[in-house]
Amino acid sequence: MTETKSTNIILFSGDYDKAMAAYIIANGAAAYDHEVTIFHTFWGLNALRKDEPIQANKTMLEKMFGKMMPRGAEKMGLSKMHFAGMGPKLIKKVMKKHNAMPLADLIEMAEEQDVNLVACTMTMDLLGLQKAELRESTQYAGVAAYLADAEDGNVNLFI
Amino acid sequence: MTETKSTNIILFSGDYDKAMAAYIIANGAAAYDHEVTIFHTFWGLNALRKDEPIQANKTMLEKMFGKMMPRGAEKMGLSKMHFAGMGPKLIKKVMKKHNAMPLADLIEMAEEQDVNLVACTMTMDLLGLQKAELRESTQYAGVAAYLADAEDGNVNLFI
Amino acid sequence: MTETKSTNIILFSGDYDKAMAAYIIANGAAAYDHEVTIFHTFWGLNALRKDEPIQANKTMLEKMFGKMMPRGAEKMGLSKMHFAGMGPKLIKKVMKKHNAMPLADLIEMAEEQDVNLVACTMTMDLLGLQKAELRESTQYAGVAAYLADAEDGNVNLFI
Repeated sequence: MTETKSTNIILFSGDYDKAMAAYIIANGAAAYDHEVTIFHTFWGLNALRKDEPIQANKTMLEKMFGKMMPRGAEKMGLSKMHFAGMGPKLIKKVMKKHNAMPLADLIEMAEEQDVNLVACTMTMDLLGLQKAELRESTQYAGVAAYLADAEDGNVNLFI
Repeated sequence: MTETKSTNIILFSGDYDKAMAAYIIANGAAAYDHEVTIFHTFWGLNALRKDEPIQANKTMLEKMFGKMMPRGAEKMGLSKMHFAGMGPKLIKKVMKKHNAMPLADLIEMAEEQDVNLVACTMTMDLLGLQKAELRESTQYAGVAAYLADAEDGNVNLFI
Repeated sequence: MTETKSTNIILFSGDYDKAMAAYIIANGAAAYDHEVTIFHTFWGLNALRKDEPIQANKTMLEKMFGKMMPRGAEKMGLSKMHFAGMGPKLIKKVMKKHNAMPLADLIEMAEEQDVNLVACTMTMDLLGLQKAELRESTQYAGVAAYLADAEDGNVNLFI
C-alpha cells in the first residue's frame, strides 16, 4: 500500500514568471500522482482572474485596486527585466519559439489534472475580489485549510 | 500520544505584505498547536525593529544602513504597487475597513501565542543591527539552530 | 542506523542577497550531513554562469537575454536598496569588514562540500543559456528530478 504524496504551494506572487514556476511544479507533481494544491493569496489571486471585465458591486477603493491589478494570467508582469513591458513580450516570444506553454495553458493543464486551485478568502476580501471574477474551477478556503493540507505534505513551497 | 507538529518560517523579505503573510500563517499554525518559529534574516529583521530610534554605537556605514531601512513593522513597504508610497496607505485603509489586523498587531498576537521570534545573528551583524534595537521578545540564533528545527518540521517556508 | 536527511532548495531568484541566503543554508545543511541540492531555475541560473564571456552559437534574442542578465554570482543585484548600484557595493564593503563570505566563495564552499548544483534544463533553453556558459560542476536535470528528491526531503525551500 502506497501513501499518496502531497504538494502544497502558496502562490503569493503576482509575477508571471513566478506563477509559471508554481504551475510547472504543480503539473509535474500531479503527473507523479501527488495530491496537489495551489493556495492563491495576495497578488497570486490575479492568476485566477477571468480576462473579461466582470460587473460587480464594488466600493471606489475596491474598483481602484481592481483596475490596478492585472486581469488574468497573461496580463501579469515579470519579477525581473520588466523594461517598460518589453520583458514579458520578449519572454513570450522566446517561449513560443521553444514551444513552451504560456501560463494560461499551464493553468488549464492543472485544471485537467485536478490540481486544487484555491483562492484565499481573507485576501480576496482585502483586495475587493469577488467570486464572479475568478475562474469557475476555483475553490475557496482560508489559512486553516492550507495548514491542514500542508502539515502532512511532502513538498511545501511559498512562491 | 500525538506528536507536536512544527512550522518554521524564514522571513527574508522586508515587504509589509510578505511579512503579513508570514505572521498570518504563523498565528494560524500556533492556533493549531504547532510549535512555531519565525527566523528573521536580512530585510525581514526590520519587522522586529522597535519604532523609536535607539542610541547605539555604530560606524558610519552601519548608521547609513540603519537610516535607509524601515524602523519597525508599520514602516515597511509593499512588494507590489508601491506607487510612491500610495500603495501601503491604500492597503492599510482597506484593511481597516475590513477589520483586518495590521502587521504590528499580528506580531503582538504571535508573541501572545508563544511563537518564537528569532533574529539571525549573522545578518544582524552584516546590517549593523544591535539587540537594543529589536523587540524584547526576540531570541537570537544562527542557521544551525534553524536547521535543527526545520529538519523535523512539518511546514517549512521561505518568505 | 540513521537515515540521511535532505535539503532541497529551488533558487529561482537572481538577487545577490537571496542567492547568498540559499547558499548559506545549503552550506549549513551540508555541514550537518544533509544531502543537499540547489536546483537553479529562471534567474537563479545566473549564479552558475562563468564570469568570462563564452563563445556560443546563439540567436539574436538569446544574445539579448544573455547580455541583459548578470554574468556570474558577483554581478547580481540586490532585492532591496539597489540605489543605482550603490546597494551591492555598500553591502560588499560591510561584508568585507565583517569577514563575511562573498557569494562566489559560498558557491565554491558548496562545491567542496558536494552540494549538488543543478541547472534546470527547461529554463536554460528558455533563456538561451548553454552548458559551456555554466560552471564545470553543474549537473543538469528537470522538474521530475527535483520532485523525486524533494518528496522525501526534510527542508524544501523556494527562494
